Amino acid sequence: MEVTRPTRKLTAMAAHEAVRAAVSRAEELGVAVNVSIVDAGGREIAFLRGDGAFLPSGQIARDKAYTAVGFGMPTGDFYRALSGKPDVLSGITGQPHVAAFPGGLPIRSDGELIGGIGVSGASAEQDDICAKAGLAAIGLVTGPEQEQG
Amino acid sequence: MEVTRPTRKLTAMAAHEAVRAAVSRAEELGVAVNVSIVDAGGREIAFLRGDGAFLPSGQIARDKAYTAVGFGMPTGDFYRALSGKPDVLSGITGQPHVAAFPGGLPIRSDGELIGGIGVSGASAEQDDICAKAGLAAIGLVTGPEQEQG
Amino acid sequence: MEVTRPTRKLTAMAAHEAVRAAVSRAEELGVAVNVSIVDAGGREIAFLRGDGAFLPSGQIARDKAYTAVGFGMPTGDFYRALSGKPDVLSGITGQPHVAAFPGGLPIRSDGELIGGIGVSGASAEQDDICAKAGLAAIGLVTGPEQEQG
Amino acid sequence: MEVTRPTRKLTAMAAHEAVRAAVSRAEELGVAVNVSIVDAGGREIAFLRGDGAFLPSGQIARDKAYTAVGFGMPTGDFYRALSGKPDVLSGITGQPHVAAFPGGLPIRSDGELIGGIGVSGASAEQDDICAKAGLAAIGLVTGPEQEQG
Repeated sequence: MEVTRPTRKLTAMAAHEAVRAAVSRAEELGVAVNVSIVDAGGREIAFLRGDGAFLPSGQIARDKAYTAVGFGMPTGDFYRALSGKPDVLSGITGQPHVAAFPGGLPIRSDGELIGGIGVSGASAEQDDICAKAGLAAIGLVTGPEQEQG
Repeated sequence: MEVTRPTRKLTAMAAHEAVRAAVSRAEELGVAVNVSIVDAGGREIAFLRGDGAFLPSGQIARDKAYTAVGFGMPTGDFYRALSGKPDVLSGITGQPHVAAFPGGLPIRSDGELIGGIGVSGASAEQDDICAKAGLAAIGLVTGPEQEQG
Repeated sequence: MEVTRPTRKLTAMAAHEAVRAAVSRAEELGVAVNVSIVDAGGREIAFLRGDGAFLPSGQIARDKAYTAVGFGMPTGDFYRALSGKPDVLSGITGQPHVAAFPGGLPIRSDGELIGGIGVSGASAEQDDICAKAGLAAIGLVTGPEQEQG
Repeated sequence: MEVTRPTRKLTAMAAHEAVRAAVSRAEELGVAVNVSIVDAGGREIAFLRGDGAFLPSGQIARDKAYTAVGFGMPTGDFYRALSGKPDVLSGITGQPHVAAFPGGLPIRSDGELIGGIGVSGASAEQDDICAKAGLAAIGLVTGPEQEQG
């Protein structure tokens, strides 16, 4: 019987760098965002609210990060993945802290799901761009495999 | 690195005068409202429930004030701003204390977002009129720039 | 069978004036306070946070107002009234929103209990002085009868 | 009537640098901490959980930051300030998110209270050292005036 399995976990300083990169990317786009990074357990490691970012969007950023790691897929894929299944979609999005709209990405390393990043405060497209910039800054990209969950 | 930035904050007595003016405007219209004013952090500075105003609308007034400062736009603009994006709209309005219907206005001074006013208890149009009357009484008007969020 | 009984209720504008008077009294004392006035049902009519007043004390002011009208006695009388009865004291103060320390006063008119005022942010003595100033400004004093609950 | 007053606010990047410095100071001490920085309204700007830091201490760090800005004094000063007043102390510490033990410091700039930093995860003394290191990294020190609340 296998008692433990090896995995990896995201470091605090990598999460710290990623939230900064996402906030800075938003500034380049002329917007302001909140960014949250959670670990594999959905617990927050780092958070940053950019200057002037919407206050209630802080929780939305956290919800996106939680949802992305929770289901192992970009939060923007929910509607697509569950299109035609309104009962399932509403059942899932009715859960506390589940955010089914763009801006959240799972974080993987060597195939292991190690966390999630959530961005909120700008348009869906801009939030997504900032989330990707956050991961790119620490060398973790969201590729095709992740897109499919 | 810039450590602090100058800004302004609303005084207690200005907030006190604004809630009175909003309640008085409602009386002129023959209705009764609750009025809340919050600071830039969404924390209440002043509250007033007019004689005969709906009891549960007190919390709604607070939510509108929080939402208006939180997103820096009139609460009535949410549906318009997010029309055609049902996933985003429901994700945002599902957050606690986010009120996406008329009666909440951001408060700005010299371009700085310094608070929000929320009115609830009458029709959407009347709530909005009272919120504007509250701000007008202290010389802070919601102009075109604010209307657009 | 008596179906209804006459009573009186505090007006919004009287509550509005009382919170202002309490905040102004604090300024004269060189301190800053939060003030809440609730009706006979313990529901808030008016609230005002003075410039620079402690943020968490807003809820404490509300709790004192609720407790004062709820038990019909000054909140500072709890320890005295229940001294020697630690079980009762802890049972009561363990209830949500019960504040058993000075700064809350019941509001009476013609013998009717019509509300409560709560002040928080300065010393117990100063909070009490401000609460009394709030009531005095609208001609409602807390006399010996009230002191005894 | 004065409608607004000038003040200052802490920037996102300064808060981001301060949480990093506090976590790094803990590592030098051989411990691990959570660090939260909130604005003048008690709303979080930045958060960082150091590698291996206690999970529930994340909320404690937030509560300390909120308490420090909420009462404008180091959280470790509560017991001292309220010694001999058990009713008041218990009334205040019973409030949600009020943390009355060391590790939280108010943040001031030019005499303005602009935020709070809270650290949790190590001993009370170590938490305090890390909070100070966080502020020192951005040139904001907690001097004698702040020590006295």
